[in-house]
Amino acid sequence: MQRFCLTISYDGTHFCGWQSQKQGRTVQQTLEKALSTIAKQPISVVGSGRTDAGVHALAQCAHVDLPVNIEPQQLVRAINTKLPNDVAVIDAHAVSGQFHARYDAFRRTYLYRLTLQRTPFNRDFCSFIPKLRINPDSIVQSLPFFLGEHDFTSFSKFNPDIKSTVCNIEKCELTRRENELQFTISANRFLHNMVRRIVGSVVLIGHHGEDPSIIGDLLELKNPSHRLIATAPPQGLYLTQVDYPSTS
Amino acid sequence: MQRFCLTISYDGTHFCGWQSQKQGRTVQQTLEKALSTIAKQPISVVGSGRTDAGVHALAQCAHVDLPVNIEPQQLVRAINTKLPNDVAVIDAHAVSGQFHARYDAFRRTYLYRLTLQRTPFNRDFCSFIPKLRINPDSIVQSLPFFLGEHDFTSFSKFNPDIKSTVCNIEKCELTRRENELQFTISANRFLHNMVRRIVGSVVLIGHHGEDPSIIGDLLELKNPSHRLIATAPPQGLYLTQVDYPSTS
Repeated sequence: MQRFCLTISYDGTHFCGWQSQKQGRTVQQTLEKALSTIAKQPISVVGSGRTDAGVHALAQCAHVDLPVNIEPQQLVRAINTKLPNDVAVIDAHAVSGQFHARYDAFRRTYLYRLTLQRTPFNRDFCSFIPKLRINPDSIVQSLPFFLGEHDFTSFSKFNPDIKSTVCNIEKCELTRRENELQFTISANRFLHNMVRRIVGSVVLIGHHGEDPSIIGDLLELKNPSHRLIATAPPQGLYLTQVDYPSTS
Repeated sequence: MQRFCLTISYDGTHFCGWQSQKQGRTVQQTLEKALSTIAKQPISVVGSGRTDAGVHALAQCAHVDLPVNIEPQQLVRAINTKLPNDVAVIDAHAVSGQFHARYDAFRRTYLYRLTLQRTPFNRDFCSFIPKLRINPDSIVQSLPFFLGEHDFTSFSKFNPDIKSTVCNIEKCELTRRENELQFTISANRFLHNMVRRIVGSVVLIGHHGEDPSIIGDLLELKNPSHRLIATAPPQGLYLTQVDYPSTS
């Protein structure tokens, strides 16, 4: 039995998210089906974390134990011949049996693409928020307030199963490109809907002309129902990187 | 009654092409349905030409007669509220009742995107030809042989209804971008499948290491079944511009 770490890219448009579920097409199940065919037995995949329906990944990571003796690059080719064309394994490497894709990840990075001009070509790959005035200057001033360790209860969907709502954001930046605002956010961990709520809320704060420092108050309030908390649409969100200690 | 020239952008992935047909979703019918709702009577749209299933347009042109008194920009907004999100009207202007989107067009320009690396994100927007060796130097040397006036019978799908197979290519260029070859081809007119056969054939000529000057022979032969004639896939093709005399 050999454990592999896989790096996976997918267009989330036609997936009901990462996580296996009873109904609907998911990335995890699609990968498990391809791997089970290769291994000729049921195979389970453990991802670094979930992504929601419509959310994309440039480089999701997952681990898998395979009872086959195969070179990593040969494994990549074998899996890709069995995958539909909206998901691809872009890398594989052998790891120790102690490696865990979720628990060992010490940093996740997301990209959020917000377009100022919807076109027939970007509709599934960027978000467009037609009813709000997008205020890039306000957004740029808002983002530093998220840096560091905070309780992100206000900026997440309530989940009774998690023990801690504290996350440490290392990077929270905006890059302006032609007709597009691109957010890059890195943290040790993310709560459910956290990136989408950070983006949705800074857009709403800019729209209303509120002072960006109100983000400190929103964090303190731990109230996800506050009028300035909004959830941006899923199709602009990409999981772009998952980092592991170099010894993995 | 006022005639308008519309500029239309569409992602052709989920359309059975431009032209109305009995079965399947087409761009023309989708536009006619939206315009008929606005005009409260059946409306017909005349395009500059057809595009096939899977082929995209950044700026297709069409004319339409509307029995409503409406400002062009107001018309653009009204149509777009009634269109699905894979097609959009990006411009409209009033034209004389003599203007004809097909007969008055004196130049069409197409872009063809050939990727060297398929990803889950470019599968519907670039073509990928996995079994052939892509030889950019050979392709660059091949393209000038198409310039000027030629009989393009070899590079088109047979059509008993057309009177002439002669076209005048003004531009036939290759731009290399990271992992992508982009062809730009302008002509007074195009035959069915002509861009896709030019691209498919120059790729095949490069793959086999044939001398690019063989294109002169292929044009002379007027034989679309020649072993060096191939049709590139539709999803890399974009109609990018239609030109009309400035008096239109």
